[in-house]
Amino acid sequence: SRASSRAIAIQPNFVSDASAVTCKGPGIEKPELGKQNSFTVDCTRGGNNVLFVGVFGPDTPCDEVYVKHQGDRQYGVSYKLTDKGQYILYVKWGEDHIPGSPFHIEV
Amino acid sequence: SRASSRAIAIQPNFVSDASAVTCKGPGIEKPELGKQNSFTVDCTRGGNNVLFVGVFGPDTPCDEVYVKHQGDRQYGVSYKLTDKGQYILYVKWGEDHIPGSPFHIEV
Repeated sequence: SRASSRAIAIQPNFVSDASAVTCKGPGIEKPELGKQNSFTVDCTRGGNNVLFVGVFGPDTPCDEVYVKHQGDRQYGVSYKLTDKGQYILYVKWGEDHIPGSPFHIEV
Repeated sequence: SRASSRAIAIQPNFVSDASAVTCKGPGIEKPELGKQNSFTVDCTRGGNNVLFVGVFGPDTPCDEVYVKHQGDRQYGVSYKLTDKGQYILYVKWGEDHIPGSPFHIEV
C-alpha cells in the first residue's frame, strides 16, 4: 500500500518561529559556479517545524540540493549550480522564510 | 557582500500548477529505516516553480534529504530516516503540495 494511505496517528504540531532561525556560510555569502555551495542552518531556537531549501533559476533548475541534519536541529546544506546566471535561494522553516530569505544568488 | 544584498534583476515569475506534478518510487510506496529512500518527481507539466522536499518527524528530524535535477524538470529525491517512527514527507511545488502530499511515512 502507498505510504499515504496508511492509517497512522501523528499530526504535525508546529510551534515554531522562523525569525529565530539563522544561517551562515560561504554558500550564502559567496556562492560559486559548479561547486558545492555550503551553509549551515541553526534551528535550535526556532521551535518545531520542517526545513525546506529550494533554488529557483529562471532558465535552468538548481542541479542539486542536499540537506543534512547534524544533530540538535542544526543542519548542513549544500547546493550546486551548473549554469552561470541569477538564482533565488529559498530557506524556509515550515511555511515561513528565515531571516534573509529569499537570497539572491549570482554565479 | 552577502548574496542577499546584491542588486540584481531577476524576479521569480511562477506560472505553475502543482496538481500536474507527479511522483513515484519506493521512497513513497515502501520507505525503509536506515536506507536511502528514493523517488522521482516529474514537474514537466507543472510549469515554472521550485521543488521543496522536507520531512517532519515528531521526535527526530529526517537525517538527510537530497534533491537532484535529472534534466527536463524531472527530479530524483532521496531521504534517509535513522530512527523508527512516524514521519510526514512534504513534496511541494512552490507553495503548493503536489498530489498525495503530505505523505505519511512509518519506518
